[in-house]
Amino acid sequence: MNSRKYIVLNPFVGEPKKEDFQIVEEQLSDLKEDEFLAEAVYISVDPYQRMKLGNVYPCDMIGGQIAKIIKSRNSEYPVGTFVMGHFGWRTHTITKPSNEKFCGQKPYMYVLPDFEDLPLSLGLGVCGRVGNTAYFGFTEICQPKWGETVVVSGAAGAVGSHVGQIAKILGCKVIGFAGTEEKCKWLVEELGFDHAANYKTVTVEKFLKENAPNGIDCYFDNVGGELSSIILAHMNNFGRVAVCGAISNYNETDPAKRKATTLQPFIVAKQLKIEGFLVNRFADKSMMGIKQNLKWVKEGKLKYREHISEGFESAADAFIGLFRGDNTGKAIVKVI
Amino acid sequence: MNSRKYIVLNPFVGEPKKEDFQIVEEQLSDLKEDEFLAEAVYISVDPYQRMKLGNVYPCDMIGGQIAKIIKSRNSEYPVGTFVMGHFGWRTHTITKPSNEKFCGQKPYMYVLPDFEDLPLSLGLGVCGRVGNTAYFGFTEICQPKWGETVVVSGAAGAVGSHVGQIAKILGCKVIGFAGTEEKCKWLVEELGFDHAANYKTVTVEKFLKENAPNGIDCYFDNVGGELSSIILAHMNNFGRVAVCGAISNYNETDPAKRKATTLQPFIVAKQLKIEGFLVNRFADKSMMGIKQNLKWVKEGKLKYREHISEGFESAADAFIGLFRGDNTGKAIVKVI
Repeated sequence: MNSRKYIVLNPFVGEPKKEDFQIVEEQLSDLKEDEFLAEAVYISVDPYQRMKLGNVYPCDMIGGQIAKIIKSRNSEYPVGTFVMGHFGWRTHTITKPSNEKFCGQKPYMYVLPDFEDLPLSLGLGVCGRVGNTAYFGFTEICQPKWGETVVVSGAAGAVGSHVGQIAKILGCKVIGFAGTEEKCKWLVEELGFDHAANYKTVTVEKFLKENAPNGIDCYFDNVGGELSSIILAHMNNFGRVAVCGAISNYNETDPAKRKATTLQPFIVAKQLKIEGFLVNRFADKSMMGIKQNLKWVKEGKLKYREHISEGFESAADAFIGLFRGDNTGKAIVKVI
Repeated sequence: MNSRKYIVLNPFVGEPKKEDFQIVEEQLSDLKEDEFLAEAVYISVDPYQRMKLGNVYPCDMIGGQIAKIIKSRNSEYPVGTFVMGHFGWRTHTITKPSNEKFCGQKPYMYVLPDFEDLPLSLGLGVCGRVGNTAYFGFTEICQPKWGETVVVSGAAGAVGSHVGQIAKILGCKVIGFAGTEEKCKWLVEELGFDHAANYKTVTVEKFLKENAPNGIDCYFDNVGGELSSIILAHMNNFGRVAVCGAISNYNETDPAKRKATTLQPFIVAKQLKIEGFLVNRFADKSMMGIKQNLKWVKEGKLKYREHISEGFESAADAFIGLFRGDNTGKAIVKVI
């Protein structure tokens, strides 16, 4: 049996290009004891994948997937079980439950909880690691309090749209920044954000003065760069900033040219706390986050959008599109 | 009776200049009930004073001082008592104990603890608010652990030199950056820093690779700017950064030209926590910090240097000198 997988041929220079990727076939061996064979159903496409590749090229493309076990020599993982695993961008995977770490943390694989009538793809988005990034990143790093003002950048992305809704559930006022009018409309009209603005067309400074007149208490930052510099200048004393990503910088290969978030000197005067995080640090309670998010989805309190591309071959384009702002909500590739 | 006081005539533009200051006389009224008259003995000169002036000019120059009560209508504050008070740069002050806040926090004045045979000027430095800035800022924001590697910028300043010594007491490896060879020599040979380098003459990158081969766990930042960007790039995962000041930026009036500390995107990848602070937030336990520092000084574990200018008239020059790196240790003006 063969698996198809994506390899990355060379380090990305600037925007990722289709030519940076190649799909190759890999022959799979027979199952050993405790192993199973899983077939990818949905593959996850995330901005962080750009940053996490190794130093040796060509290399396998990393990423999570929802896979169905189609052969098994492990009685705890019978055929028909759906798992979320960090198997990379590949159609078939032979593996076994292990203590193997991913990015220094366990687990790299788990059996999906029962989604009932909800789509399995949620296991890559709102009810998976992306959902946990929003849930734990926002609640634990920002420590939001009832009535506070929260700003989210990259607000129409998978994580940002989720953070804003949690903030509303927790009684905060929420302002989102996104890159198109349509995304902003979705944030306000469907997700219940108090305000949203297209950072490309509004004067961010003026917009914040009008819509966050009492200052910002929490900022959930997905983008970094100049937008963040302006937002940070409007923070209140003891404001908390969760830095989840810096998508505005990911395509800049020269570190010296990366747009810096200007935080001097008001980080001192306002006693701001700015903390970056990766979802892995919350791995020991990941199922708790998944179940809380699943509960909110079922109760209708947490809405989501998925940007689904069809077919294994569409993954590279879906990835490139992330950095162009093509997606609203979670980018996913439907493999079968 | 008259007091002499400094007023600041206009907002500082670039480096503070002598012409920005003027000494004026002010007539003091008679003491009312509960009031006392305090005569300045030592006046404090600190970088933060540049940032904390109001919006209306001319304005009184702010700052702490050690003063001796020379007249009193308050039995709890008899003649001969020494107090630390935020009275500004003035020779004589009539005031009373009150709930008045300074920068939103109490207390703005307290009776000095017994320094025994140590100089009273320590109440402005190592055993005062500056000492507490080092003590609480480092221990509470950086949360250092035994065996960790700590970097201090502005390491020969009052706060930096103190932080490095606390780090040594707590069992850390300490690397300091300062602006002259002489300062670095003092840090290593007298204060026990493991390494120190003149950031103006070494290649910081190379120096850190050689002397912090296992990465940096805590960074106590007094200066910001480019030096901080390089240091941050060498932080370990879950590194903690206490931002105490940004002296490299204080003289830049145009916010757009302030040198930014570049923290994207490794703040995410390394999950760094970067927090600014002002010593006021630890006001409720300030005497605890002062007494701990006093104990260390008496035990010979905490050394200090004072850069004392003589005479009330020398204060403006002492202040200007701060931004040129003239001082090693705490800058103080001896008034009487």
